[in-house]
Amino acid sequence: MEVINYLLGYKDLKIIQDPDMFCFSLDSVLLPQFVTLNLNEKKILDIGCGNAPMPLILSTRTSAKIVGVEIQKEIYELAQKTIQINNKEDQISIIHGDIKELYKTWESDCFDVIVCNPPFFKVNKESRLNVSDQRKLARHEITLNLEDIMKISRKLLKNNGVLGIVHRPERLIDILLLMRKNNIEPKKIQFIYPKIGSDANILLIEGRKNGKLGLKILKPLITHNSDGGYTDEIKKYFE
Amino acid sequence: MEVINYLLGYKDLKIIQDPDMFCFSLDSVLLPQFVTLNLNEKKILDIGCGNAPMPLILSTRTSAKIVGVEIQKEIYELAQKTIQINNKEDQISIIHGDIKELYKTWESDCFDVIVCNPPFFKVNKESRLNVSDQRKLARHEITLNLEDIMKISRKLLKNNGVLGIVHRPERLIDILLLMRKNNIEPKKIQFIYPKIGSDANILLIEGRKNGKLGLKILKPLITHNSDGGYTDEIKKYFE
Repeated sequence: MEVINYLLGYKDLKIIQDPDMFCFSLDSVLLPQFVTLNLNEKKILDIGCGNAPMPLILSTRTSAKIVGVEIQKEIYELAQKTIQINNKEDQISIIHGDIKELYKTWESDCFDVIVCNPPFFKVNKESRLNVSDQRKLARHEITLNLEDIMKISRKLLKNNGVLGIVHRPERLIDILLLMRKNNIEPKKIQFIYPKIGSDANILLIEGRKNGKLGLKILKPLITHNSDGGYTDEIKKYFE
Repeated sequence: MEVINYLLGYKDLKIIQDPDMFCFSLDSVLLPQFVTLNLNEKKILDIGCGNAPMPLILSTRTSAKIVGVEIQKEIYELAQKTIQINNKEDQISIIHGDIKELYKTWESDCFDVIVCNPPFFKVNKESRLNVSDQRKLARHEITLNLEDIMKISRKLLKNNGVLGIVHRPERLIDILLLMRKNNIEPKKIQFIYPKIGSDANILLIEGRKNGKLGLKILKPLITHNSDGGYTDEIKKYFE
């Protein structure tokens, strides 16, 4: 069952969702706000774009061309429709395919920015996989792991180009190690906390290809008040 | 000129300082509060203990024996006096010497906890070294670098023993890499922010020798209010 929602905080952006299959999350709102844009960027890639929340939000911040790649046919179709109903076809293109194969045929050093809201859980025997195949792929590192993302970014990013990832804090070390290994220098990190006094539950991180040393830990963001509602800081993003 | 101060927040602890030479800082109050103690620990080491603020604070949290090592004679003497005026000689011993040499002669696997508030700045040609030699040693990685700390901890810590370090957030990646390289698994991190809206300026990190995977990012701590005074959370530590 497909439904049309307004994209949180963006009253003129609509997004087509299918709750049985794939819904975008807070992660997909935070990352495109976090990532550094300099307004000179020409091309942006979203690896595993889902129903395209990040390309849509990015399109409000830049006039760069945005390419989203989605491996799952049904979700790709949602993304396509979403781009159409927002009249964003001139700026955003969605490609159906496996980025792990596609990128080999693409030119090197052609993207200014790459964003990725990747599958979160390492696949192992104990992983309880979700009954829905679509959700399974989106939540687990079945089709795309962190190392793939880094290798792809290393090839496709221009020199000093930006890679932005949203992930879980438990994976911080793996992400930092893999960035360094692939010449993507971590430059800024922001931790997101569900409420005051809690451990962080979301990690936003940005690196630059062949970037200079120098890492900043940005101010913490708290998402919920003690009454369960969103904090004012988060409402700024999407209400 | 030596002065006796009360150790912030610990009305019954006094500390002898010499502002020309070495004063303890907020870092030395935060780390001994942050580090995990289970009350079964028998022996704790402070690498580069300065005038012994961390051993003193730790002594309020545990009955373990605490050893502080200080390479600089004059600062070692301040530490000795500080331990005496607090009547802590039974629990805390201060050793004058170079931990990089001492540890080679010590037994392996004998400490439950190691803490270190190490020199912060990497030494390079551009480092503007402080005129005072004592301050220079305490602020720069002249006598002890991060790799030394890890190697020493790897040898001296018991299995699953805790290494706690306070450092600058810019060095996060180096610290994580060196911990992993030395079989000290990073387990918890806390970032300290000077005020709301600022980047983090202090990093607290704890790892365990041969520890299991699993990293937590603890709640953020903000040190100052907009009026410049300490926040209530920090006052709890030392007022």
